[in-house]
Amino acid sequence: MKNVLVGQSGGPTAVINSSLAGVYETAKACGAPHVYGMQYGIEGLLEEKLVDLDGVLSDKMDIELLKRTPSSFLGSCRHKLPDPTVDEAPFLRLFELFAKYDIGAVFYIGGNDSMDTISKLSAYGKTVNSEIRFIGVPKTIDNDLMLTDHTPGYGSAAKYIATILKEVICDSSVYDLRSVTVAEIMGRHTGWLAAASSPDCNGPDLILLPERPFDEEAFLKRVAELEKERHNVIIAVSEGVKNKDGVFLCDLVSTAGQLDAFGHKAILSGTSRYLADLIRVRLGCKTRAIEFSTLQRCASHLASRTDITEAYQVGGAAVEAAVRGETAKMAAIKRKSDQPYRAETEMVDVTKVANFEKKVPLDWITEDGMHVNENFERYARPLIQAELTPIYINGVPRHIHL
Amino acid sequence: MKNVLVGQSGGPTAVINSSLAGVYETAKACGAPHVYGMQYGIEGLLEEKLVDLDGVLSDKMDIELLKRTPSSFLGSCRHKLPDPTVDEAPFLRLFELFAKYDIGAVFYIGGNDSMDTISKLSAYGKTVNSEIRFIGVPKTIDNDLMLTDHTPGYGSAAKYIATILKEVICDSSVYDLRSVTVAEIMGRHTGWLAAASSPDCNGPDLILLPERPFDEEAFLKRVAELEKERHNVIIAVSEGVKNKDGVFLCDLVSTAGQLDAFGHKAILSGTSRYLADLIRVRLGCKTRAIEFSTLQRCASHLASRTDITEAYQVGGAAVEAAVRGETAKMAAIKRKSDQPYRAETEMVDVTKVANFEKKVPLDWITEDGMHVNENFERYARPLIQAELTPIYINGVPRHIHL
Repeated sequence: MKNVLVGQSGGPTAVINSSLAGVYETAKACGAPHVYGMQYGIEGLLEEKLVDLDGVLSDKMDIELLKRTPSSFLGSCRHKLPDPTVDEAPFLRLFELFAKYDIGAVFYIGGNDSMDTISKLSAYGKTVNSEIRFIGVPKTIDNDLMLTDHTPGYGSAAKYIATILKEVICDSSVYDLRSVTVAEIMGRHTGWLAAASSPDCNGPDLILLPERPFDEEAFLKRVAELEKERHNVIIAVSEGVKNKDGVFLCDLVSTAGQLDAFGHKAILSGTSRYLADLIRVRLGCKTRAIEFSTLQRCASHLASRTDITEAYQVGGAAVEAAVRGETAKMAAIKRKSDQPYRAETEMVDVTKVANFEKKVPLDWITEDGMHVNENFERYARPLIQAELTPIYINGVPRHIHL
Repeated sequence: MKNVLVGQSGGPTAVINSSLAGVYETAKACGAPHVYGMQYGIEGLLEEKLVDLDGVLSDKMDIELLKRTPSSFLGSCRHKLPDPTVDEAPFLRLFELFAKYDIGAVFYIGGNDSMDTISKLSAYGKTVNSEIRFIGVPKTIDNDLMLTDHTPGYGSAAKYIATILKEVICDSSVYDLRSVTVAEIMGRHTGWLAAASSPDCNGPDLILLPERPFDEEAFLKRVAELEKERHNVIIAVSEGVKNKDGVFLCDLVSTAGQLDAFGHKAILSGTSRYLADLIRVRLGCKTRAIEFSTLQRCASHLASRTDITEAYQVGGAAVEAAVRGETAKMAAIKRKSDQPYRAETEMVDVTKVANFEKKVPLDWITEDGMHVNENFERYARPLIQAELTPIYINGVPRHIHL
């Protein structure tokens, strides 16, 4: 067996390093002499930034720490390869490097764009009669990849969001006051993460997803009804919700022309702020907008063990497929049953994944478009089960860094 | 023994309910026929909103859930009692209720204002020859109470902040880009929480506390130096940092007159945004401002077990003191040693706690005012040790609600 090359691409997740562990350990078990990591993905590789992983993952404790370290251990990039018929230079450079390091298989852990990279590399490889195998390993908190039941990274982000929403709900009911809390959840194009805020009956009262256009009057009517029923109304909203004209709600805020302290136009992520302001102005209630920041994608301390395990499995399955001679594939997760939850890995055609986007099915959303139904819950519940305890040193989780 | 009355006041914490559990279980163990809870603190009590806790904490599982439920189980308020020589009415009403429910001891779990309530009630009680004991139980994430080594609630907030900062640091280094991340931490008047962002060498590069006035030029010079040394500079800043003129940095933002989408003046908590803008404009680097929202005070899923235990202990110690006949006291924590960490409870004069504020000692801050030193670390490290695992049902922590 030749050497193996692995890279990470796109936004961080809590479990992308578990897939790296799966690739690394399986490649070593299959007899790969060296497993090289691209630093900062394909972009770093083009500058010959590689690291021999044997030197940095020398014992089993490193692997355990790697599984518990959020973000991309190897560094990441957002780099789209050109069409090789238009610009062949990067492909020539990459295949020269593959030859230099005697690479037999390349694994790229990422989302849509990363699958595009795998797709282009394998197609180009075919044209130059390369025997190198190119396999994608799925990763994205957004859960928007086709041909896989779900993507590693989603379950942990979902568990984090569901958990903190429950804590915020405890927090929001503390005073004897009526209030509406609007919590903004990541998800520019799909509502998978916002939907995850309700794994049981103690979730938010309303959930707004980008899959359904925002209807201001229907929304305000519903909030007014809820406000009569209960002290504290909780609304989860996907940052990517648009109105009927296809305009992001957060862009409606920006057009008001906010300036920062230095007189420059401020960029505010403002879907929750927009809705909180709307409710306050139109219904006259006390409102609060909450954003959860980047932790949604990197809260390893609250990762789903199911997610960590599956992230590892798809990494390993990708290596096994390469050893079998497969290429231009992505390792996917196929669900066998919801309850008890059972799933297995399978290999799918990467060209059918790249550049597509999977949305929340409309029949998983309630008729009024303001919540999810039992179809979604049946789907999401298994993905957030169980925990992988961080290794705490001095009271905080220990991570591993390159 | 007569009945016991307990209330919670002020902002939520992750462990205020553990103190409630300590009061409840110790009172029952001491033979209190009934333990009543004030709903929404003294404000709710004035409207006779009481609950018999025997009915809602009927078995040991309820107690375990209570310890793991953030925010105030009983509800809270921000209500300051008047000077009884000016307005006696609320005191007459409260003592009438104490008589009606045959109350022998009142416990109030909270911060500065709550200790003021205990102080006033006990002083008034003395003037009417009441035998009711009034004892305060400390609680605040801000850690700003006098006469106690630290306050229950602080350790868990500190553990949460230290943990998520580490995760954010992983996240911020993912791309091969130079950037400065400014993370805003709660703390309007003191820097205890911001200081906690660095329990070991993997914390932020700079920490700004309200205890030291912000020196713009020295700060920019230091950031410019750090920017040369490393790819990613991480700055933790207390929301309450002020400039040399005593103006909050966040108010410097507000004066720019930002408007919301409806043309109203927006209220932005903007210390991190101010600093990120300042660095971007003056040093020309890519910056990112992060706020952590309300989770800093309610992230039970990451509570410190030391904190949970001590919160329970001060609740129990308060009851024991009342049984001994003490009144006008607060249960405090006295540290016996840093390493190994040992502490015990003691009773202190509540009048010496109410309305004072404990700041981070200046000799725990580095000379340049932009970090903390080993004195702080020695103090804070024991407080964030160990965990209390949530009870996960369907993948998310189970809480208990009234």
